[in-house]
Amino acid sequence: MIGRLNHVAIAVKDLAKASAVYKNALGANVGPALAQPEHGVTVVFIELPNTKIELLEPLGEGSPIAKFLEKSPDGGIHHVCYEVDDIIAARDQLKSQGARVLGDGTPKIGAHGKPVLFLHPKDFCGTLVELEQV
Amino acid sequence: MIGRLNHVAIAVKDLAKASAVYKNALGANVGPALAQPEHGVTVVFIELPNTKIELLEPLGEGSPIAKFLEKSPDGGIHHVCYEVDDIIAARDQLKSQGARVLGDGTPKIGAHGKPVLFLHPKDFCGTLVELEQV
Repeated sequence: MIGRLNHVAIAVKDLAKASAVYKNALGANVGPALAQPEHGVTVVFIELPNTKIELLEPLGEGSPIAKFLEKSPDGGIHHVCYEVDDIIAARDQLKSQGARVLGDGTPKIGAHGKPVLFLHPKDFCGTLVELEQV
Repeated sequence: MIGRLNHVAIAVKDLAKASAVYKNALGANVGPALAQPEHGVTVVFIELPNTKIELLEPLGEGSPIAKFLEKSPDGGIHHVCYEVDDIIAARDQLKSQGARVLGDGTPKIGAHGKPVLFLHPKDFCGTLVELEQV
């Protein structure tokens, strides 16, 4: 079912500092900061030759990554995103096997403008998994 | 400096169960369990079209992932591994910028038989970063 690893998301408190780490220390191709108020984050995309790293900083009240950063103030890997061809078929197959989909199970439009769903970490090796239809 | 994302490593307590999640629920291409006593882990490689996921289970006493799993008993993302062309040059450049390399800074032969180093999470967005020379 899953295809490419679309991205690894790393939550950070200070996006400018994190961008500098990836740009200056690690010499990566780091994009500009993009505010995504509808997702409660500001995002920086880092283009690697085979996938992306997404740096996420909380934006506004009730950011979905605020609690994570309370527990991990240095930042940390927040989720991985796998690509799927058909997110509804993927969801239904996973649910039929007893896996938990977060929210009401309706795909939302994610940071890349494509339908996404998140899967419950308890059912996926303690890892928050995003599925993105590509 | 960094090139491809070589892999994302996910530490788990039960490798058979985690392998089944990726094979059966997520439909991925899951390899056999490979004991790597010299690294204190048993590894399962999951081949995605563009990168790999490595599932790690502790093996023997003093496994480097034992403490992680005490804090995160459900498992979780343990590290990301970026490829570099020249690990000595990468190390020296990072150290000259004040970044901390774990251990004595001498590359070890990693799970893929290539030289690797680990970088201090505090200097890299709270993320344990492995560099692998390819």
